[in-house]
Amino acid sequence: MLRLGPLAAAGRLLPAGLRLGPARPAGGRVSLSRSWPPRPPGSIGDRGLLSRQVRAAAGSAGGGGRRGPALKTPKGTRDHPPAHAALRDRLLAAVVACFKRHGAAAIDTPVLELRETLMGKYGEEAKLIYELQDQGGELLALRYDLTVPFARYLAMNKITNMKRYHVAKVYRRDNPATTRGRYREFYQCDFDIAGQFDPMIPDAECLKIVHEILSDLQLGDFVIKVNDRRILNGVFAVCGIPESKFITTCSTVDKLDKMPWEEVRSEMVGEKGLSPEAADHIGEYVQLHGGLDLIERLLQDPKLSQNKLAKEGLGDMKLLFEYLTLFGITGKISFDLSLARGLDYYTGVIFEAVLLQQENDHVEESVGVGSVAGGGRYDGLVGMFDPKGRKVPCVGVSIGIERIFSILEQRVEASGEKVRTTETQVLVATPQKHLLAARLKLISELWDAGIKAEMLYKKDPKLLKQLQYCEDMGIPLAAIVGEQELTDGVVKLRDVATREEVDIPREKLVDEIRRRLEP
Amino acid sequence: MLRLGPLAAAGRLLPAGLRLGPARPAGGRVSLSRSWPPRPPGSIGDRGLLSRQVRAAAGSAGGGGRRGPALKTPKGTRDHPPAHAALRDRLLAAVVACFKRHGAAAIDTPVLELRETLMGKYGEEAKLIYELQDQGGELLALRYDLTVPFARYLAMNKITNMKRYHVAKVYRRDNPATTRGRYREFYQCDFDIAGQFDPMIPDAECLKIVHEILSDLQLGDFVIKVNDRRILNGVFAVCGIPESKFITTCSTVDKLDKMPWEEVRSEMVGEKGLSPEAADHIGEYVQLHGGLDLIERLLQDPKLSQNKLAKEGLGDMKLLFEYLTLFGITGKISFDLSLARGLDYYTGVIFEAVLLQQENDHVEESVGVGSVAGGGRYDGLVGMFDPKGRKVPCVGVSIGIERIFSILEQRVEASGEKVRTTETQVLVATPQKHLLAARLKLISELWDAGIKAEMLYKKDPKLLKQLQYCEDMGIPLAAIVGEQELTDGVVKLRDVATREEVDIPREKLVDEIRRRLEP
Repeated sequence: MLRLGPLAAAGRLLPAGLRLGPARPAGGRVSLSRSWPPRPPGSIGDRGLLSRQVRAAAGSAGGGGRRGPALKTPKGTRDHPPAHAALRDRLLAAVVACFKRHGAAAIDTPVLELRETLMGKYGEEAKLIYELQDQGGELLALRYDLTVPFARYLAMNKITNMKRYHVAKVYRRDNPATTRGRYREFYQCDFDIAGQFDPMIPDAECLKIVHEILSDLQLGDFVIKVNDRRILNGVFAVCGIPESKFITTCSTVDKLDKMPWEEVRSEMVGEKGLSPEAADHIGEYVQLHGGLDLIERLLQDPKLSQNKLAKEGLGDMKLLFEYLTLFGITGKISFDLSLARGLDYYTGVIFEAVLLQQENDHVEESVGVGSVAGGGRYDGLVGMFDPKGRKVPCVGVSIGIERIFSILEQRVEASGEKVRTTETQVLVATPQKHLLAARLKLISELWDAGIKAEMLYKKDPKLLKQLQYCEDMGIPLAAIVGEQELTDGVVKLRDVATREEVDIPREKLVDEIRRRLEP
Repeated sequence: MLRLGPLAAAGRLLPAGLRLGPARPAGGRVSLSRSWPPRPPGSIGDRGLLSRQVRAAAGSAGGGGRRGPALKTPKGTRDHPPAHAALRDRLLAAVVACFKRHGAAAIDTPVLELRETLMGKYGEEAKLIYELQDQGGELLALRYDLTVPFARYLAMNKITNMKRYHVAKVYRRDNPATTRGRYREFYQCDFDIAGQFDPMIPDAECLKIVHEILSDLQLGDFVIKVNDRRILNGVFAVCGIPESKFITTCSTVDKLDKMPWEEVRSEMVGEKGLSPEAADHIGEYVQLHGGLDLIERLLQDPKLSQNKLAKEGLGDMKLLFEYLTLFGITGKISFDLSLARGLDYYTGVIFEAVLLQQENDHVEESVGVGSVAGGGRYDGLVGMFDPKGRKVPCVGVSIGIERIFSILEQRVEASGEKVRTTETQVLVATPQKHLLAARLKLISELWDAGIKAEMLYKKDPKLLKQLQYCEDMGIPLAAIVGEQELTDGVVKLRDVATREEVDIPREKLVDEIRRRLEP
């Protein structure tokens, strides 16, 4: 039913500016969506059901025999109609609230970067970068993620420690799988800690953040897989893989969450040219997962414990688990040697959160279950930008907001609930003709007092139409001024849900509206 | 001093989630920036003075004899460092709060549009559109404004009425004048009303919105110039200009705010090929400005009153002034026949808000005074996209947030105030060594209770360093756990400003922190 946890109700998840409805019970649970009686299509501001909006908006074309330009958005992109945008804004606000709770500052960087800034950072994925036409001047590209621009920012401004978040769109010329929430333009929500600190303290905080966000959003059960690039590299080394093949072997291992070991093994041997023995040896390691017990066992492993990198990684992993135990979140953490992560730039701890399949949950079937957050340590990236190669160690996490949104979207759709798209508190209405001036004067007073108010843009609308608009849009109150009210110096305040009407002296109207809407 | 008006203090301008500091006096004025004692550079999260950040970030290059990629952002773009981003977020929140107060719903559209969507909408300015490289697939471009994508959205989804706002970045390959707040990537904040309604009611609301936003931000005195494309076209017609020259004459008239009439006249005669008599005749009209009196006078003008378009425009202008009188804002409105607006697509009312030069205001000298909001009616744009050419009348306003930001930025710089970049409420600190576990456990409890908390990422930081960090970052409270406190089951809560310390039973800590920080 798309409800946030009790923490959200305690004001933790949603900033009060995004409060979810005027009449929520104090201390009760808060719904991410607002529902009210169904209404006819065609009223202003909202185009009906979320599902309809979304289907209409997802990169689809308009009418058939058309003149003028093609009526569509670019492949793999979509418009966000009001119900969509409202739900997404609330989701982003919840994520940002968590980032702020952990003391991060916001930065923003341009959507455009110099091409050379992006090149050489993403390995094979660089072919997915959108490049701009050479129109005279610099060669530009659209950012591919928020991490490389962050590293460029740190190096450019010679910043050696910083805790920042960044919520913004990134661009990838990928084959979009829009039904699974994969687009060519999509939001990333990143939190990163840069600086030289004692080991694993910032890394543990990143995992705590993932845990908080996924718990608060009540997306169902999840597990956060953790590994370390140094452990993986150590495994490859003791299995006799030459260092030049570490990265490519890594990307093959990364496929273990999508294909069985047998297929991964044959890719290693067939495409990557590893010996069958080396592949089998790797297989013994990368199929392991567990907790502190597994770390201890590997620290005793006769071969692995001889490898400097692996030993370092395992030592840090043990420390990490200590800190996660203090945070009380090890129940959702799995040390998983099959986790490799695609990107080149990771150097230490890596992690990825996945939602677990749930029985009797129609949502999971259609949306698909997958990674909803990921990240890791990248100690070398800033040095690639620094003129003198000075390194700034970094660790960060990226929340897969689009996938989470797809899940929430389908839940809303399945529940038949509607998301309120505006926050209007009062409709200013008139019961007779020739009262436009009275409406304009009253609404102006309300706006100036900070009340969210609307009126119909008609000279003489019927009262029924005005009240219907309230019901359609979920507006809780109507302030009605007729001839009698003007004479008496009052306004009739109507509760749309209960249909109760009370005359309020005009000078007390603003206070009365505030009183009714603030619990 | 960068203060918002009393309305802001009444909770109108800033959503509570963006509240500006824990200790603001109830009912008092709210400062857009937060100040606290000066602090040394190098602490995490904030890089010192806003001015320094901004200079470092404004498209400037990094170190000299460098290796690796060029260390800069693309020409005409900039990073927004934390102090910058925080100030801008608050400014955007204030604008969005106004849009929501008027009942608008949010939409979002892709940064990328098909090239053909943008072509033929901007006249000569189309040469400033960023085009993407043809990488196989559709030909794409970056959006140039938010209005054309909105019209495309309406036509594509067959929406005939809607009130929406959209805050997002747009892209123009212009010659950037970054000191005056003009960039190649910049935010637009648009509010538009689409639909067939009774005349001038939505148009009046757009002007009310401009008035509210500029008043609330206390940017100094301003005037909103209003005109109507139909009146201008009527003027051109009665001056004997052929219809084919209306648009080009319009762009020449538009220069009247930057050059004297004599220069505008010679452009009309020299470049645009108007007869000297026609130019002089136009000059008589376009140098007029006033209020209701001027409208009445022009309605009696023997020639203009014979022109159907002009008469329609003047009639509507009179109606508009009636509505603006009811809103109580005519004091800032000037009916100005020199206002023409650059873009092709306007068809009716047009308007533009400019800040007025103020004596003894150092800010205006350096930033320059200019248009900070503009808009108008465009009844034909949606029809350009509709397969059957069906029109949807629209009127909208765009707030020039970058210029406003430049002004606020310089005010902050001049005042020496610092903008707080994080919202951290409590630093969790320890006074002795070997207490990392105690800190991790306590901070985890605070996060889970929704308290914004930080700790230093050191195993054994000195207490002095921890308290210094509070002062540097403006963190109001420190929660200190030492051996004694652990034994006693208490936490020492320190008020950073007063240095007062009180032992609080651990189970009451969260409530006590909330009590102290919520006024």
